[in-house]
Amino acid sequence: MSENIETLRWNQDHFEMIDQRILPADFKYISYTSASSVADGIRSMVVRGAPAIGCAAAYGVALEALNLQDSSDDEFAKGMEDAFEVLAQSRPTAVNLFWAIDRMRTKMNESQGTVKEIANILLDEAHKVKREDIEINRTMGSHGAVLLNDGARVLTHCNAGALATAGHGTALGVFRSAVEAGKKISVIADETRPFLQGARLTAWEMVQENIPVTLISDNMSGHLMSQGEVDAVVVGTDRVAGNGDVANKIGTYMVAVLAKRHNIPFYVACPLSTIDRSITSGKDIPIEERPVEEVTGYRDCQWAAEGVNVRNPAFDVTPAELVTGLITEKGVVLNPTTEKINELFKS
Amino acid sequence: MSENIETLRWNQDHFEMIDQRILPADFKYISYTSASSVADGIRSMVVRGAPAIGCAAAYGVALEALNLQDSSDDEFAKGMEDAFEVLAQSRPTAVNLFWAIDRMRTKMNESQGTVKEIANILLDEAHKVKREDIEINRTMGSHGAVLLNDGARVLTHCNAGALATAGHGTALGVFRSAVEAGKKISVIADETRPFLQGARLTAWEMVQENIPVTLISDNMSGHLMSQGEVDAVVVGTDRVAGNGDVANKIGTYMVAVLAKRHNIPFYVACPLSTIDRSITSGKDIPIEERPVEEVTGYRDCQWAAEGVNVRNPAFDVTPAELVTGLITEKGVVLNPTTEKINELFKS
Repeated sequence: MSENIETLRWNQDHFEMIDQRILPADFKYISYTSASSVADGIRSMVVRGAPAIGCAAAYGVALEALNLQDSSDDEFAKGMEDAFEVLAQSRPTAVNLFWAIDRMRTKMNESQGTVKEIANILLDEAHKVKREDIEINRTMGSHGAVLLNDGARVLTHCNAGALATAGHGTALGVFRSAVEAGKKISVIADETRPFLQGARLTAWEMVQENIPVTLISDNMSGHLMSQGEVDAVVVGTDRVAGNGDVANKIGTYMVAVLAKRHNIPFYVACPLSTIDRSITSGKDIPIEERPVEEVTGYRDCQWAAEGVNVRNPAFDVTPAELVTGLITEKGVVLNPTTEKINELFKS
Repeated sequence: MSENIETLRWNQDHFEMIDQRILPADFKYISYTSASSVADGIRSMVVRGAPAIGCAAAYGVALEALNLQDSSDDEFAKGMEDAFEVLAQSRPTAVNLFWAIDRMRTKMNESQGTVKEIANILLDEAHKVKREDIEINRTMGSHGAVLLNDGARVLTHCNAGALATAGHGTALGVFRSAVEAGKKISVIADETRPFLQGARLTAWEMVQENIPVTLISDNMSGHLMSQGEVDAVVVGTDRVAGNGDVANKIGTYMVAVLAKRHNIPFYVACPLSTIDRSITSGKDIPIEERPVEEVTGYRDCQWAAEGVNVRNPAFDVTPAELVTGLITEKGVVLNPTTEKINELFKS
């Protein structure tokens, strides 16, 4: 099952991540031995998906601490600040990145002992971030599975799967848990231009586990909804604002608007680490613009007319009013509001 | 200007069409000498776009008549029926195909003279279909240009340009006419998966004429609309039902729904030959499903996970309630209804 897809892992003395840029044609791990190389891996999308980025950042911090384990206290403190900074600069939208950096910094500050001891504490903390992520995804999955009827045809956008997390996945975790609970569901995967996470990663994950999956172009979901061929939508998210507005992969907003028009429930699988209450609404979430070459073609295959201008916003914001429910590890928040989200963090 | 892009042309004794499958990387004409080879060209998308398909079909009929010009009356009649049939089977959605076949058949039936004389009358009629198409597009363009404000940022989907017609274009004809009228407009082109008509053809046409054009993935238009970056939408159409429902390239419906949400006018450039009053609503328009290889990649570049199912509907239907206006050669029909469309054909 999905836990066999180990998106990122510690291997004796270094960190490894599946190179998601070349999936599904090729499957290989890349090794990392410093925070800055992990930051490069995040920026260049070797790894992507908010929870996976958070885990990767935690290991990036641990790597740097281990590299500095023979340093003086001052050198260690300075080196670690540089590591936090370089990781924080890697991608702007996914809040899990900043959540993981903050968690690692707090752990470092709270810890007693030699630099070497603290470095090992930070490695243990990174392992813990990873273990907890899988645990949370399984809990979210069981909450979300209840929302899907037997036989449901569920649309998802981008990849919020095992590959976007430490394992099991958020949106795809809901599908996996539904299947484990004995429900027959089928998945409709938007291809998700320009990086094609749906065609390459979601389709691959579902095929690996024999969950029926149908690939469509991003511009086809509205037509299928109008024909009564979609029963529910479940997506992941990179950051949820305090009021329930959802930043996710570009195109999510259009799916949500169409789902609303056709009275199709629109769910967002979202661990608490993805909710950023420091931001009151989606308007304040920074939207990353990525390189033009992603839109003018795909990798070596370039097809656009020369001389054209390009826009490449990587995310968009879906207002809370379009969200039927946030699926979290603490349960499902229907029709999310600031009050309901605050309540979630109290319990 | 756009009349320099000669999408299809008669060359002494044969017919030629630009191979639109390889644009913009390569530019070449393919020669045709029979109705069945033209039908193959339409099916394989050497030529596409409803008005261009209509013109191509007219020349396909003329080619077959010329091939049969030394036949007996009976052989000619049978050969022509076969030609009408093979052309009608090439693509199901664009009504201009059937309109052009009917026009040529009517011309044939009305004409007096020898088989050779009738063959030449049909070739003249094909030339006339082509000339009229350009004329109609220029008239539509001038009606549509009035609707765009100076400085307007106009989104279009697919390619309804010179390449989709005999010249000037329908939606892009509106942009060309606006520019000719001295308006500064800029175009936002959806890339239009899976065949990428926006990235390859619309972007190319606009760059050729120095009309500012920005390429986006299909899933980005909603985000740009939410940011106030789109002032109007103009698209073409493959068939309009008697009530104003619009069949056009897959994804048009999603753009129309988002435009409505953001109070952005949504116009459809539509010659009368594209209106099919034999069909009372969009529900009855046949939607072509095309090969899976178009969705699993693009040409030789295949990226989707193996084993995935695929859907590939080539068109969708936008209900009339989402259409701000139909731009025709007889003027603009705002908020189209069956009554208004019937009125249009009376005058």
